[in-house]
Amino acid sequence: MIETPYLLFLGDAPDPLAAKVAQGIRDWRPDHALGQLRLDGCKADMRLPDMTIAEAVAAGVKTLVIGVANRGGVISPSWKSVLLEALDAGLDIASGLHNLLRDEADLAEKAKALGRTLHDVRVPSVRYPIANGKKRTGKRVLAVGTDCSVGKMYTGLCIEKAMHARGRKATFRATGQTGILITGDGVPLDAVVADFMAGSIEYLTPDNEPDHWDVIEGQGSLFHASYSGVTMALIHGGQPDALVLCHEPNRPHMRGLPEYKLPSLEDVRDVALRLARVVNPACQVVGVSLNTSALSDDAALALCNATEARLGLPTVDPFRHGADRLAEALETI
Amino acid sequence: MIETPYLLFLGDAPDPLAAKVAQGIRDWRPDHALGQLRLDGCKADMRLPDMTIAEAVAAGVKTLVIGVANRGGVISPSWKSVLLEALDAGLDIASGLHNLLRDEADLAEKAKALGRTLHDVRVPSVRYPIANGKKRTGKRVLAVGTDCSVGKMYTGLCIEKAMHARGRKATFRATGQTGILITGDGVPLDAVVADFMAGSIEYLTPDNEPDHWDVIEGQGSLFHASYSGVTMALIHGGQPDALVLCHEPNRPHMRGLPEYKLPSLEDVRDVALRLARVVNPACQVVGVSLNTSALSDDAALALCNATEARLGLPTVDPFRHGADRLAEALETI
Repeated sequence: MIETPYLLFLGDAPDPLAAKVAQGIRDWRPDHALGQLRLDGCKADMRLPDMTIAEAVAAGVKTLVIGVANRGGVISPSWKSVLLEALDAGLDIASGLHNLLRDEADLAEKAKALGRTLHDVRVPSVRYPIANGKKRTGKRVLAVGTDCSVGKMYTGLCIEKAMHARGRKATFRATGQTGILITGDGVPLDAVVADFMAGSIEYLTPDNEPDHWDVIEGQGSLFHASYSGVTMALIHGGQPDALVLCHEPNRPHMRGLPEYKLPSLEDVRDVALRLARVVNPACQVVGVSLNTSALSDDAALALCNATEARLGLPTVDPFRHGADRLAEALETI
Repeated sequence: MIETPYLLFLGDAPDPLAAKVAQGIRDWRPDHALGQLRLDGCKADMRLPDMTIAEAVAAGVKTLVIGVANRGGVISPSWKSVLLEALDAGLDIASGLHNLLRDEADLAEKAKALGRTLHDVRVPSVRYPIANGKKRTGKRVLAVGTDCSVGKMYTGLCIEKAMHARGRKATFRATGQTGILITGDGVPLDAVVADFMAGSIEYLTPDNEPDHWDVIEGQGSLFHASYSGVTMALIHGGQPDALVLCHEPNRPHMRGLPEYKLPSLEDVRDVALRLARVVNPACQVVGVSLNTSALSDDAALALCNATEARLGLPTVDPFRHGADRLAEALETI
């Protein structure tokens, strides 16, 4: 668990896209983000107060979050003095970069000497159990996609927000690095050892109140040759009561696999539901989430309507239209 | 790659079952097993010449294989003097135990000083790639099961043997610790990090001659809540042209999951084939392998005949009846 609130470190981000982790925290956990720290040449701006390390500490910040990705995921030498200053001033540091904070000797030594925590969310910090498949209390919804990177994390975060707006109990459960930094907790599933994948998701979504929903962040796709095993473990470890189908139209082929066409939403519905019912025979598909970011407002609405008519399921772009209709559908379960 | 031939170390095996790794090597790679080494009280016997370390070296042995599992998978103190003597005499050591040879300081130091190799096949020794899903040459058959431990490894080894007997090119590809020790090579799939599972199987079964079959050892089951992700990665990474369905009758519930009934062979056929065709649209189910070890000869034959009539697929217990009919079925692909 990463201590909040955060100072978002944007470094020398070459463009706004490089700061997508910071943007995610800003969008989804604005209460966690008290300020930003930018170096010379930074091209990203979260429209938060610019703070020095000392100002952040005075404002109550507990953790500096590296909200920017360099090319290659490395920890840039130009960042080092800021990171060392943060540790000196009493802050922990959290990072989702491939290169780990703990592998930087100067950071590791100082953190150890001062009793600070370096959170490398890229790698698991827990010894997860083997899944036992036992029925859990509370309810769980999982986003499953036609492909990787079709908007499963945003769908989950939108559903959580819509459920809260409707006065429902819901917790987004992060399974990827960005999601973990946004919420401060979760399982970096793609880095978990095979035998413990499903168990890590059981660990992440334990027994809960009967009217509480865990909204589990989806990963990969059952139809993606590289990552389908991860998706499978999410379905069986997550023991979902409900599935939401996620899709991005206009995609020419599966991400990173030029030889592979996307499956239809019907394919995903049928295969994911069949497998989900192994662990929860009552599981249902409750809605469709389309990522229409490449479409006009009119085209987005038309596509949602056509998809809804075709599948007979509430269909929205939750980031554009809100996820209220998906949250409403979950109330019938 | 573990150097052959082997001396099979049986230690102080409390019963024959504890030496199942040694038994597997004895059954499937008899040419690799020149002798056995037993300590006082050993209750297992491979009916191989008993050898001292010195005799084994004189006979040409290259590697001492720990063919026995202690309770807890530990490296017993009573084994240590033999293992150290083996290193001194010029042998490598191979082990599939949970506790690693490399974590024993005395073994690690001596191996390093003498230039010997400690093979801990429980953990990967390769940085596997992310799967790319590209069509590979050669053919591949994968065993998929209704459950874990229903005989998928033995089915694969029997198919390899039957194909060789028919003059066909075939290579058993191990994906588990016992299989790796039997063949001297393979991928310990259950210990691979999630993102690299499918890629590790592509690595294990690369392009090959058009008439060569890789016989891929199956793991887990798509219907096993704990391990289905591993099975999924095998199906997509393996890109199989053919599937063989494996089942053990008389099993009251899924292994380790008392709440879960086994799926039918039809369930496994339909779901596994649907998913396999994502990466290989021509994939077919070619036969059924039943583990009838708990049945009489008559009952075993009757069950195979009934299953064959029901599914319309060649059905054998390959360990009891041979796998010739499965090998024959593969020739039609």
